[in-house]
Amino acid sequence: MQEASEIAELLFAGDRGALARLISWAENRDPRFPEALAQIYPRVGQAWRIGVTGPPGAGKSSLTNELVKALRANDERVGVLAIDPSSPFTGGALLGDRIRMEERTQDPGVYIRSMASRESHGGLARAASDACDVMDAFGFERIVVETVGVGQAEYDVVSATDTVVCVLCPGAGDGIQAMKAGLLEVADVLCVNKSDLQGADRLGMDLEDAIRLRRPLANARRSSAAGWQTPVVSTSAHEPSGLDDLIAVIEAHKAYLTDSGSAGGGDGGAALELIRREKRIEQVRRVVGERLEEELWGDSGHTDAVDSLLGKSITPYDVAEEILGTVLWASGKTP
Amino acid sequence: MQEASEIAELLFAGDRGALARLISWAENRDPRFPEALAQIYPRVGQAWRIGVTGPPGAGKSSLTNELVKALRANDERVGVLAIDPSSPFTGGALLGDRIRMEERTQDPGVYIRSMASRESHGGLARAASDACDVMDAFGFERIVVETVGVGQAEYDVVSATDTVVCVLCPGAGDGIQAMKAGLLEVADVLCVNKSDLQGADRLGMDLEDAIRLRRPLANARRSSAAGWQTPVVSTSAHEPSGLDDLIAVIEAHKAYLTDSGSAGGGDGGAALELIRREKRIEQVRRVVGERLEEELWGDSGHTDAVDSLLGKSITPYDVAEEILGTVLWASGKTP
Repeated sequence: MQEASEIAELLFAGDRGALARLISWAENRDPRFPEALAQIYPRVGQAWRIGVTGPPGAGKSSLTNELVKALRANDERVGVLAIDPSSPFTGGALLGDRIRMEERTQDPGVYIRSMASRESHGGLARAASDACDVMDAFGFERIVVETVGVGQAEYDVVSATDTVVCVLCPGAGDGIQAMKAGLLEVADVLCVNKSDLQGADRLGMDLEDAIRLRRPLANARRSSAAGWQTPVVSTSAHEPSGLDDLIAVIEAHKAYLTDSGSAGGGDGGAALELIRREKRIEQVRRVVGERLEEELWGDSGHTDAVDSLLGKSITPYDVAEEILGTVLWASGKTP
Repeated sequence: MQEASEIAELLFAGDRGALARLISWAENRDPRFPEALAQIYPRVGQAWRIGVTGPPGAGKSSLTNELVKALRANDERVGVLAIDPSSPFTGGALLGDRIRMEERTQDPGVYIRSMASRESHGGLARAASDACDVMDAFGFERIVVETVGVGQAEYDVVSATDTVVCVLCPGAGDGIQAMKAGLLEVADVLCVNKSDLQGADRLGMDLEDAIRLRRPLANARRSSAAGWQTPVVSTSAHEPSGLDDLIAVIEAHKAYLTDSGSAGGGDGGAALELIRREKRIEQVRRVVGERLEEELWGDSGHTDAVDSLLGKSITPYDVAEEILGTVLWASGKTP
């Protein structure tokens, strides 16, 4: 069994095998991961994390590929975490888009890692954030996290990044639909992709209108960056075009968060520090949730007990009370 | 304060105000809800619950409207639960689709209820399932649950229903994209909507191929219904057409689950009973999770403690250990 301290040493020495193994530990909830993370944690926090999300078909994978190429042209080392669905139809192997990314893997300044979204009730965002910490400690200057889909689990993944890029394209995934799916509320940057298609200009204008009309955000996570005006950029991964613009607005967002003081607080600390603190608290909550989940429903858990408790006239609330009574301290705040 | 027993009486008497109030109790986690649910629980289990999901832009809202119309033509009383995103841009008011549904609200055999998806970390599926129980006890024969979006939270909502209809349309939300989004794995019925559009036939054939090629499902929830062959139907909410076909396959799925014995078990019980049992266990897990969430992170929770624990070299795992130590019984399985 490899020790946590040993693998941390290897990671610091630039060993890509150690990088891969540590991410696997995070993904598989290896009991060695927490200790290894503690070893490398002092080096976490240097990378800028870019989330790429948007509805299916918007061209996120191709755009991510071009974005990585453009970041490399600026001589930045890039780690990529691609969240892939693992369909029972295909075992997750149908992602032809990912193949195009292969040309990047010859480049020692790029590391690409897939993570299957599978049946992770919340575990995905925890593992993705851990994987970013590992890539960060390894020394990548930019980390790109790409997700397929537009649901809560995907939000949780990208909202752990520093700059969230929402990718839209003219057609079925248009502006109103994006609003219905709640996509705009997580976006720090809006990207109209496939800008050569008909309707792209209109989509861009609609999005700019929507941004102007937007109400103050209730989301606490973003409260420290309330002054940021979400820009809309146009790209085409096909030509390719607009990538420099995209990088420029990402860098502008980075500068905004790094330089600006706290919006609400009085100590003048950088907004970035507050935001990252909030994101670490979110990660604590995810770890706690997962541990409780394991405790309650793992191998030695309560599933059998539930089964025996369930009867025609016993509600799920009654069963839940029973279970909570066996787990929680009998404190003043009775469960 | 209204008592749980009083409102249960009113519900049984057909009072729609009581119906609305009970769903609000479920949505707002009113402390009276568990007791009220216990009162009405013996009448839960008669309705057939139909989930309608699919990518943004597939036409789910219009199709749901037509589906309700067609169910009414068969003289069935229908409850509708529409899960709407609540965008901070609009407060959730932009859903023009919903307006078309208004014509249904004059019909005493139909009840339509919206539920905002807001920032419910898992709470949405719990509340949606509770709302279905309430509509079920009220006496609706069919309950339609429609969700916008394709993420984990939406899966959780529709997977609590008896028959999941996945709506797709030609274009951006096409077959491969649907597979990427993992949509097919929850579908009991696939519906190619906007069948008048170019590419609809092709999409239908692709989906049928995908179904044939599909691997055995790993999902335990569906293990009792492994023999069901997911049918593909074509509809157009525009003309409208295909609604009778859609209802026919939903009814066929109902008959399949109601009549078929357990696939794995030896007692010959109906598959439906096993599946619903699994779904109730899922609901127990959601209730337990929500209660723990409340206990840990509510008003009197640990958020401040986390904040004071977080330091540059203290990982989220370290903080999680501290918190779990204060909450869980110091049992043999140390947290």
